[in-house]
Amino acid sequence: MKLRRSSRLVDMTHYLLEHPHQLVPLTFFAERYQSAKSSISEDLAIVKQTFEQQGIGTLQTLPGAAGGVQYIPKISHEEAKETIDYLCKMLANPERLLPGGYLYMNDILGDPRIVNKIGRLYASVFSDRKIDVVMTVATKGIPLAYAVAHFLNVPVVIVRRDNKVTEGSMVSINYVSGSSKRIQTMVLAKRSLAEGSNVLIIDDFMKAGGTVNGMISLLDEFNANVMGIGVLVESEETEERLVDEYISLVKLSSVDVKEKQITVKEGNYFKFIK
Amino acid sequence: MKLRRSSRLVDMTHYLLEHPHQLVPLTFFAERYQSAKSSISEDLAIVKQTFEQQGIGTLQTLPGAAGGVQYIPKISHEEAKETIDYLCKMLANPERLLPGGYLYMNDILGDPRIVNKIGRLYASVFSDRKIDVVMTVATKGIPLAYAVAHFLNVPVVIVRRDNKVTEGSMVSINYVSGSSKRIQTMVLAKRSLAEGSNVLIIDDFMKAGGTVNGMISLLDEFNANVMGIGVLVESEETEERLVDEYISLVKLSSVDVKEKQITVKEGNYFKFIK
Repeated sequence: MKLRRSSRLVDMTHYLLEHPHQLVPLTFFAERYQSAKSSISEDLAIVKQTFEQQGIGTLQTLPGAAGGVQYIPKISHEEAKETIDYLCKMLANPERLLPGGYLYMNDILGDPRIVNKIGRLYASVFSDRKIDVVMTVATKGIPLAYAVAHFLNVPVVIVRRDNKVTEGSMVSINYVSGSSKRIQTMVLAKRSLAEGSNVLIIDDFMKAGGTVNGMISLLDEFNANVMGIGVLVESEETEERLVDEYISLVKLSSVDVKEKQITVKEGNYFKFIK
Repeated sequence: MKLRRSSRLVDMTHYLLEHPHQLVPLTFFAERYQSAKSSISEDLAIVKQTFEQQGIGTLQTLPGAAGGVQYIPKISHEEAKETIDYLCKMLANPERLLPGGYLYMNDILGDPRIVNKIGRLYASVFSDRKIDVVMTVATKGIPLAYAVAHFLNVPVVIVRRDNKVTEGSMVSINYVSGSSKRIQTMVLAKRSLAEGSNVLIIDDFMKAGGTVNGMISLLDEFNANVMGIGVLVESEETEERLVDEYISLVKLSSVDVKEKQITVKEGNYFKFIK
């Protein structure tokens, strides 16, 4: 259907936002709008300029016959700072304290708007790495993993802690939980991850890092490569960290159950932003 | 920052897509772009026309001082049909057969693109109902629930099957699983759902409906109202259905483990589309 420039810009913006990290040939848009490629190029220049100016991301253009345009989601430094400050403020609320020193986070992780922001934060910082799949462990990391995966245009695989699942042949490993020092099990369906995949690990919480470390061991069984690790909240109160490089948004520096005080700081996210 | 119409259209499209089912005052856009309200109205007319023409959704305008504009995500009949046909084709692949007559669906549920489409399908059909929250049960329904919740702009609550969770005070119920006739437990953190909420239940699979029925009983404990039920796949092979009104995308009519044959049909989705 032939569309005017103003309508093309609206539809093109929607299309690109729905297809992040995917190369779209210019001929696709030219045919979709029955317009000349030169007009499409002009449209894309406007979209690119606006995306960059408004902190939405950027468009990368690949010239040549196999070329096209690709939307790379980004987040502005300002919006990233705002999001992390908001998370810190939310988490510092003493009403989150649960027996055992745990924190209630269901309201934060249950809000698709915040979850999507977190997804854009991670997709932005990992946008240059070659990632085939996002991995997380059930249950709380799942929404975060999907949000990141959406913006990176890759699938999600979910590791389980129990074996009572019907997903066919499973690969399982035992690992030592960093904080409780107990031996635990982790399983992943064999057919859910191709050998040699490049994997981004995403989780909601990291104390000593036993769970993340377990996922790394599991990835070893698939000859897969860890391309990055993102955790929403890291706890500072730990004797030794089992994981080296990871990107956190929030750092829980102390939880005082008796005094009902939670001290929260910015994580190491901004160290990884050029 | 003052923006030209072409840039305004790009940014406005992005903003509206990121804020579905949310009333945005015209003054918000007027200030954001330092433009007259009359220009903003003209922009919105273009966005609305394009959204409707391209099957993205619609814009609803509320006049008056407390008014504004609201993006309502929809899916065109054509795109809905395409998505459901694709799901049927994917699910009919005999390689999905797992021991016990279960179907492997991780690849489908692990693809954020498909999951988002399913989210738009449900958000479209439930767009007129007053929904406060989307509920699902861990684990496989979680990505679907978030996708629907994103397009409806409401939070997600996740019911668990185990009690080993640290979310504070929990409400638990026992229910009889429809197919295995075993007594099972379901729990939900007390503070995760407000009394009297209007709830949309989303799940990936329904056989007799025991799990969905369990969620309904649980909602009773919160004096909450079931506003709708969406299941991705329903199984036809069941003696009696415990749930009355639900919307399914796909119907599994027979699974023959011996002959390695799966018969799949369209669900009842289109019966609910005017």
